[in-house]
Amino acid sequence: MLTDAVRKASDESTPLVAARNAVLRVCNAIPSSEMIELDRLMRTSPSVQARKQVFYVQQEDEIYTALRERWPEPERSMALRTVAMLAVGAMRIAGDIFTQENGERPLAELLENIFRSVASEIR
Amino acid sequence: MLTDAVRKASDESTPLVAARNAVLRVCNAIPSSEMIELDRLMRTSPSVQARKQVFYVQQEDEIYTALRERWPEPERSMALRTVAMLAVGAMRIAGDIFTQENGERPLAELLENIFRSVASEIR
Repeated sequence: MLTDAVRKASDESTPLVAARNAVLRVCNAIPSSEMIELDRLMRTSPSVQARKQVFYVQQEDEIYTALRERWPEPERSMALRTVAMLAVGAMRIAGDIFTQENGERPLAELLENIFRSVASEIR
Repeated sequence: MLTDAVRKASDESTPLVAARNAVLRVCNAIPSSEMIELDRLMRTSPSVQARKQVFYVQQEDEIYTALRERWPEPERSMALRTVAMLAVGAMRIAGDIFTQENGERPLAELLENIFRSVASEIR
């Protein structure tokens, strides 16, 4: 799902926008109530928590691979990898805040705020 | 070590610069040869790999806490958390490339390149 969204990004898209849209699409596909419950369940086990982190690294690799197919210039590779890290990190933080807030704000809204706040801190 | 560097950041510093300097200081403190060996050893065990990811999340929390002490405005909290994620993610990617390249480029140089590439992708 993540990589499909990157592959289907429009011609005018940038790597960051493509990665952002990919994680937004995934977040919109998960029902909120299920997410909170799943997250609570996962937090009860340290080994499941550890595997969750490994899962995030896998997601990052998948997005990175899809971005490289789309923007294959070798000199861009490090930037693409960083964009993939940023997108998956944003997804993880959005999920954490979502659970903490008990679903008060929609996941997609949190994710958009995170991307905006990165941009404002870097500029 | 990470949080000390954030706390000691100059008054003109931004959260991103403080977090960047913190991870740069840590990278400069680890001898290259030891890092490659340690990383190789760690890669032989999936459970150690998983714990490494948990370690990164802990580092992120520590930097985030230090950044919040320094910039305590609540409306800035999400941005600070994102900056901490970015800094630790950059450290992780720099470490991966460093090992892949067998220490060809110094870790600090890789880390600086990563921070530059994020800035160029976001602008």
